[in-house]
Amino acid sequence: MTAVWESLTVDARDPGRLARWWAEALGYQVVNEGPDEVEIRQTADRLPGIVFVPGTAAKAGKNRLHLDLRPTDREAEVERLVDMGARHVDIGQDGDDWTVLADPEGNEFCVLRQRGN
Amino acid sequence: MTAVWESLTVDARDPGRLARWWAEALGYQVVNEGPDEVEIRQTADRLPGIVFVPGTAAKAGKNRLHLDLRPTDREAEVERLVDMGARHVDIGQDGDDWTVLADPEGNEFCVLRQRGN
Repeated sequence: MTAVWESLTVDARDPGRLARWWAEALGYQVVNEGPDEVEIRQTADRLPGIVFVPGTAAKAGKNRLHLDLRPTDREAEVERLVDMGARHVDIGQDGDDWTVLADPEGNEFCVLRQRGN
Repeated sequence: MTAVWESLTVDARDPGRLARWWAEALGYQVVNEGPDEVEIRQTADRLPGIVFVPGTAAKAGKNRLHLDLRPTDREAEVERLVDMGARHVDIGQDGDDWTVLADPEGNEFCVLRQRGN
């Protein structure tokens, strides 16, 4: 290995706002905040982080990359995220194994079944 | 925190091939391979993994999410990745801080500067 996966970068209309939204969603902390990027990590030295940068391109279709979250209680977690501003999206993939949501900027992500179910 | 970031999912024309490409790129291992998905992780219990699933939608513009790799030697790492089949892409972001490449299915990613430079 000659490189490590340092971060996932997300283009955002409002990087600071979206970074804080994801920090709350994941229980992450903001570890770096500047005019050009805001980075969140689980802990300061835990990789990969998620970096939010300015991007103004209109969203075109479903993202090819998306995050999957593993909840301890899916129903409660989906409710919590929707209360935070996520919305349900139907991209023909909703099933018993996951619930598809979108963050406040429309980025799709999945809430998986809790382990053991 | 009521959910963990379990994985990053990537839509791929050829999930198995792209999974093995990224496993080689990152020094990851295939931890799960089925007809519907192939998952790679740094080690079996290290999250997040990267999951490759079938997806046939044509790529529309630059991905809104992309990976950033931190190399020990950027020049050597870029050469290694290009030898593996990555290609340079110009999305107006090439700078001294990172080199933009695309994987064999066109997903953009960045090779950052090595630490200390």
